[in-house]
Amino acid sequence: MSGSPSTVELIERKKRGGELSPEEMRGLLAGYLAGEVPDYQVAAWLMAVVWRGMTEQETLEFTRAMVQSGETLEWPGLDRPTVDKHSTGGVGDKTSVVLVPLMAAAGAAFVKMSGRGLGHTGGTLDKLESIPGFRCELPLEEMRAQVRRIGCALVGQSGELVPADKKLYALRDVTGTVDSMPLIAGSIMSKKLAGGASSIVLDVKWGSGAFMQTLDDARELARTLVAIGNGAGRRTRAVLSPMRQPLGRTVGNALEIREAIDTLHGRGPADLWRLTLELGAHLLELSGLAKSADEARSALTWLRDSGAGSRTLQTLIEAQGGDPRVVDEPDILPSAPVVRPFISDLPGWVAEADARTIGDAALALGAGRRTKADPVDPAVGIVVRARIGDRIEPGQPLADVHARSGEAADEAIARLRSAFVLSVRPAGPVPEDYETVG
Amino acid sequence: MSGSPSTVELIERKKRGGELSPEEMRGLLAGYLAGEVPDYQVAAWLMAVVWRGMTEQETLEFTRAMVQSGETLEWPGLDRPTVDKHSTGGVGDKTSVVLVPLMAAAGAAFVKMSGRGLGHTGGTLDKLESIPGFRCELPLEEMRAQVRRIGCALVGQSGELVPADKKLYALRDVTGTVDSMPLIAGSIMSKKLAGGASSIVLDVKWGSGAFMQTLDDARELARTLVAIGNGAGRRTRAVLSPMRQPLGRTVGNALEIREAIDTLHGRGPADLWRLTLELGAHLLELSGLAKSADEARSALTWLRDSGAGSRTLQTLIEAQGGDPRVVDEPDILPSAPVVRPFISDLPGWVAEADARTIGDAALALGAGRRTKADPVDPAVGIVVRARIGDRIEPGQPLADVHARSGEAADEAIARLRSAFVLSVRPAGPVPEDYETVG
Repeated sequence: MSGSPSTVELIERKKRGGELSPEEMRGLLAGYLAGEVPDYQVAAWLMAVVWRGMTEQETLEFTRAMVQSGETLEWPGLDRPTVDKHSTGGVGDKTSVVLVPLMAAAGAAFVKMSGRGLGHTGGTLDKLESIPGFRCELPLEEMRAQVRRIGCALVGQSGELVPADKKLYALRDVTGTVDSMPLIAGSIMSKKLAGGASSIVLDVKWGSGAFMQTLDDARELARTLVAIGNGAGRRTRAVLSPMRQPLGRTVGNALEIREAIDTLHGRGPADLWRLTLELGAHLLELSGLAKSADEARSALTWLRDSGAGSRTLQTLIEAQGGDPRVVDEPDILPSAPVVRPFISDLPGWVAEADARTIGDAALALGAGRRTKADPVDPAVGIVVRARIGDRIEPGQPLADVHARSGEAADEAIARLRSAFVLSVRPAGPVPEDYETVG
Repeated sequence: MSGSPSTVELIERKKRGGELSPEEMRGLLAGYLAGEVPDYQVAAWLMAVVWRGMTEQETLEFTRAMVQSGETLEWPGLDRPTVDKHSTGGVGDKTSVVLVPLMAAAGAAFVKMSGRGLGHTGGTLDKLESIPGFRCELPLEEMRAQVRRIGCALVGQSGELVPADKKLYALRDVTGTVDSMPLIAGSIMSKKLAGGASSIVLDVKWGSGAFMQTLDDARELARTLVAIGNGAGRRTRAVLSPMRQPLGRTVGNALEIREAIDTLHGRGPADLWRLTLELGAHLLELSGLAKSADEARSALTWLRDSGAGSRTLQTLIEAQGGDPRVVDEPDILPSAPVVRPFISDLPGWVAEADARTIGDAALALGAGRRTKADPVDPAVGIVVRARIGDRIEPGQPLADVHARSGEAADEAIARLRSAFVLSVRPAGPVPEDYETVG
């Protein structure tokens, strides 16, 4: 017997509910990346992890081992505190586009790396690319220089950071091992840790339109994320936010960019601004740029109202090759040839405006991808005009569909019929209290 | 969405504790064998099966799908009922060498396919190959002809039968997914079903020297095996037999062949004959060759005492190229140059004669294999001279070690020290009651 246990022994131990040591975890992942541990052994280990979970220590070491698989960003001599944010994804979530320039205007350095969307609607990258000329793929050196100059960047996830995540996710995707709390948390946090920010806020969404369907699951994920962040020496907090109806009014790439710009101009939907303020206030507090949450909220509101936030977005768009006029003239964004309202036949109070169904309707219009190879249509999408709790009269629109063709619009309207539920009794608005973890 | 679910959906369903349909199970295994379903997906599914188990229906379909992966033996026009037996393996188990010729003498057709041993001691094939000239690898056609002529064959598992088992076992071996009741049962029963016998008896051993450590596990495996056999239309029974100390007195290839021959001559150890009678009586009853267990026992005892059993073994050995004189002159079997007794220093009653430790000592002598590539030494092994419950005086031997060298003998004796436990109080003999399932 050699001194270090074989891969089979590590699989067997996890299968029996045991724990891998830090060295074993690093060895397993390094061996996998080097092609020495085959896919099939990692697949069996992944399923054992779905079954048995990981201890907090294992989850931290798993995340660290992921980080060690590639480059990490460091910011020697930077005169701004580094911040980062991650959202577990929801329908209509364009918070990053509002928050990143505001935080940069507030004095933070904010590199937001995002992925492309799969399912529902486009990811943040897809949304940004609806801005004519905008480039999300910046070489690391160019991105570093931009952050030193203007304090922010909105870019694609660099393949040089956490290459293990991409390889492991591809395997999880085809082996039914995606839904494991420690694997999900490790994947999220490895990218945040490699990004190098000192203060991290996690927006963990829950509800029908979110990855986490229940508040309990969202809490568990939030606790795991925060434990990893703190364990790795980053100031980390998580905010639990509801995702029962879409965030804001728009679902679709250019439509969402327009709404983000509107929000920076002070005329966006209340829920989007409220979440932006919440996440931003935590980041300002964690990074020491504000002494209290109240002070942070006032500062962010002032930065919005003074136009500092929208000007920073303009600078960012210009720096990344996009047309900066879009911030003052959002009409230059691509628009759909067909816009059709979805009219209610009945009176009632809106009891459901289901985020997932609305997201699926936007996906069917072409706003998102079914497979990685699908193109995304920047112009199409849905503008939600009825929120849960609203009173609706017959003939009033529940949503507008922005489509490539009349046929596509009709299909989307058919899908939307099951998204909205009208009640004969008043339905209260969704409670949108946030819960903070960490 | 296409009509048939993807492999990922099948993995996900099993992960959630769901069930695969017969078509899905067949498709999964056929896809794997055809190289269309990759190793890593099967590995994840296997771990999900270890986790969630399989329903009785799934286990049956899994077994059937394994059988369908290759050839099956059929016996059109054969004038004898076909029988088969499988033992889950134990230390010193040479029952097949006694039972097969007796059953053939009793009028059954008995093709016993065996594997080579790994760990502990040699398998039945290794034992048989200690007979000079004996060939275990018969082409299927030659084996069929032999069975028609003499009613029996003792051969290696044909690669043409159940090729899926070999491929799947190799994957289970490196992915920590060996210890799953339905996978174990499916592997065993697929080979029995493909062997074509109408009546099947399973010898499920339990105790320290067995694969199943507890009676409960052995019962569950027995029930699963019997359910598959009956579900596939075979008359199937299982016998639970204890494996705390070795079966018979000998552990080692030529030593065990000699003990099997002694048993056919009526001078073998009582426990080995008792188990042979038990298994044989069930097979004679199941196959209709005897009306009752009592009648079957009398017939088998008479066939032993009349010499019909030993003559049939002689015919079998000759048919398979071995030296038939071995049955009357077992001294022509290879013997070890060094034979040393392991002497007790103390008086007492034997409380343990641990099968696993004795098996490991025989393995260290060279009687078994550590890896598939290791050669097996036919001559070496251990003769156990003290059974649980025996009274021992100082200077009395507990075992004889048959070794290649004095050094190897000393090492084996050192190992044997931990196998035997002497008690100051009388220790009752191991209860050897058999339990029958099915």
